[in-house]
Amino acid sequence: MNTPVRCDLLIRKITSLVTVASGAPGALSSPGWDDLGIIENGALAVREGTILAVGKDAAVARTVVPASHCEIVDGSGKMLLPGFVDPHTHFLFAGSREKEYGMRAEGIDYMEIRRRGGGILSSVRSFRAASDETLLCAGADRLDRFLRNGTTTVEGKSGYGLTVDEELRALRLMNRLNERHPLDVVPTFLGAHDVPGEYAGKRADYVRLVIDEMIPAVAGHAEFCDVFCEKGVFTVGESRAILEAGKRCGLLPRLHAEEFAPIGGGKLAAEVGALSADHLLVVPEEDVIAMAKSGTVAVFLPGTSIGLAKNEFADPSLFRKHGQPIALATDCNPGSSFTESMPAVISLAVSLGGLTVPEAIVGATRNAAAAIGRLDRVGTLEAGKRADCVLFDAVDPCAIPYRYSTNLACCVVKNGAVALRADQVFLPNGRNSQ
Amino acid sequence: MNTPVRCDLLIRKITSLVTVASGAPGALSSPGWDDLGIIENGALAVREGTILAVGKDAAVARTVVPASHCEIVDGSGKMLLPGFVDPHTHFLFAGSREKEYGMRAEGIDYMEIRRRGGGILSSVRSFRAASDETLLCAGADRLDRFLRNGTTTVEGKSGYGLTVDEELRALRLMNRLNERHPLDVVPTFLGAHDVPGEYAGKRADYVRLVIDEMIPAVAGHAEFCDVFCEKGVFTVGESRAILEAGKRCGLLPRLHAEEFAPIGGGKLAAEVGALSADHLLVVPEEDVIAMAKSGTVAVFLPGTSIGLAKNEFADPSLFRKHGQPIALATDCNPGSSFTESMPAVISLAVSLGGLTVPEAIVGATRNAAAAIGRLDRVGTLEAGKRADCVLFDAVDPCAIPYRYSTNLACCVVKNGAVALRADQVFLPNGRNSQ
Repeated sequence: MNTPVRCDLLIRKITSLVTVASGAPGALSSPGWDDLGIIENGALAVREGTILAVGKDAAVARTVVPASHCEIVDGSGKMLLPGFVDPHTHFLFAGSREKEYGMRAEGIDYMEIRRRGGGILSSVRSFRAASDETLLCAGADRLDRFLRNGTTTVEGKSGYGLTVDEELRALRLMNRLNERHPLDVVPTFLGAHDVPGEYAGKRADYVRLVIDEMIPAVAGHAEFCDVFCEKGVFTVGESRAILEAGKRCGLLPRLHAEEFAPIGGGKLAAEVGALSADHLLVVPEEDVIAMAKSGTVAVFLPGTSIGLAKNEFADPSLFRKHGQPIALATDCNPGSSFTESMPAVISLAVSLGGLTVPEAIVGATRNAAAAIGRLDRVGTLEAGKRADCVLFDAVDPCAIPYRYSTNLACCVVKNGAVALRADQVFLPNGRNSQ
Repeated sequence: MNTPVRCDLLIRKITSLVTVASGAPGALSSPGWDDLGIIENGALAVREGTILAVGKDAAVARTVVPASHCEIVDGSGKMLLPGFVDPHTHFLFAGSREKEYGMRAEGIDYMEIRRRGGGILSSVRSFRAASDETLLCAGADRLDRFLRNGTTTVEGKSGYGLTVDEELRALRLMNRLNERHPLDVVPTFLGAHDVPGEYAGKRADYVRLVIDEMIPAVAGHAEFCDVFCEKGVFTVGESRAILEAGKRCGLLPRLHAEEFAPIGGGKLAAEVGALSADHLLVVPEEDVIAMAKSGTVAVFLPGTSIGLAKNEFADPSLFRKHGQPIALATDCNPGSSFTESMPAVISLAVSLGGLTVPEAIVGATRNAAAAIGRLDRVGTLEAGKRADCVLFDAVDPCAIPYRYSTNLACCVVKNGAVALRADQVFLPNGRNSQ
């Protein structure tokens, strides 16, 4: 008989322990309820930031012993999920562009908004003008909001600097936030986000700058290389050259593809072996087939329908048909989706975007982890993985999208430590939540 | 020269004071930016729960003097709005119906959901089985969430009791919550919400019960009488008879109209002089014309698109064309829209429902107050009105829908008292928000 192992965090009597760990390894296509791997009356034990045991409460109690300093959390009446992984954000920015949003709602088109000083290049101006301290404060504030909404790992892209120095600064600041903040920040180089004003009419020169100077400079500071491959932004040929240059410097490829025009971004993502292709509102079937073959995860960003005030969503049926895994992300950015809430994105994906609840939950956890190459560490609740998990004030995963715009996260555990508890949230009349 | 008046609450140096008090009196049709009546660098002074002065900071400072006990709030970098008025909710319920939501997302239709025990009648069973204490706790928890999202007045409907005693109990409990909780609760009798199981196949008998017994019993406990006038629920003729019976007992009429089938609910609302007709997704133009003539406010409930997982919204263009005022509401209920957030509803209305930002802000304040006959007291920030207002961590009204699913309310004032402050909200790392 084995000696029980000591744990330093123990979540007990969890009414619904949603492990998302059932079935085949890797990202899942068309997941159903079984794939959520729900354990009723479960427990999860943690030691030094790593999950030690997950299972029925009684079974876990037999295998672990709480250490003297162990924190014990009561999960009764609650649901535990893996911390959300947000695989596509541009969270490190300065300034805010709500006026553009208001203009769009009045029917003013993008070119006119650009003429009035809006668009990505307005965020580039704000970023360049902002001090490190301003950006760190704004970034930390957003990471706080991600965490409060149950996200424990967030990808973050550069792309508002658009010079060698400013792109490098963006990545260094994200790496600094990663060290300082409980959340894990996964940095992506997106020098090819747009062509900056000083290169207007000289796009080829800017692409050369990205390939010859930026990529060698940022290698080691980022994990991924991304390109905004889109009609009027970067062509498939330019995107290919940039992603290949990134690969030569150790940056794994990912891609903004087929958001507005079907120019072949999905196929390119498959060709270069991208971990993910993101947006995909207008993706042709042949691109989906290519992505399915290459194992490229499809990342849907339904929040942009809110930010762009247009009622269009990526169509899940084509992806289901070809067994293509779908992940979800906020796309948190000042132009088209200023939210830090994965639950909000899950709501939109299910209510308006046609996903089922299991597809959306898997998309926000397991498949999202696969989209940023982190499925070995996070995205499911299994022994040996990092103890990133969230207790929700609900017992059914349907509650997350159903209770629209309501934050049900009541205890967020990051790296095995309780990072946030809702009982510290103030309520009127001196009453506190349970 | 007048002696300055003493105030007991003073909000100073407000970057954007959005009074919504500009232009003509009453509800507004097609409001624009001017109708928001924005004062830059404004101040608002309160005495004994009533607004004493609103204007430029310097001007207000000349007319009022803070009393010794006066609370002074700094509004710099912030935006002040009237507290939201939510004119259509069913917030007093027991149980939760997230499983039905999950079924709908999988394409299971309403009749099958009913067969499996879902639908309104499942909430009726839960309500009847719940104790007063259970309902009061659930109700107070929801009122807390309304308040945290910036709502200071909420309409609440009965309609999960569907017997004389249970309907009366619902209204009594709402009146008790109104006394106990800072929020103002405006009770509406909705005995004609559905036909309860015990009257299956005997709808005429149930209508008689509503008219002959319920209405006389609830008079004095409710302000309004509402009917779910819809194909398969109550006909126009039955709805008319119920609303007229309500009027004879002092209950002002309002109506659920034209949500699924255009059966003439809008016209009926106009005919009986209803303060509002609500839903209106499929309203014919002639009904809009009738409503415009009678001064019936159109209440849009875009949150039901989330709860019903169907991407359809009421069309504002027809209402604009006929000068018809539009209000917004959450429809907070367990079947089709479980949210307490007016900001979320504003986001949906602007991003997906085609409203402009000024239309949505006016719809959530001034026109919403008109929809429940409260515009003499709330809905705008003007001297003499009740001091219900909310400070937001933003300076432009566009920020509310733009920062989707993000609660920017940082100080909620109800009846002249600070009911809630965001600096009491816990953030990770021991940092607190400003």
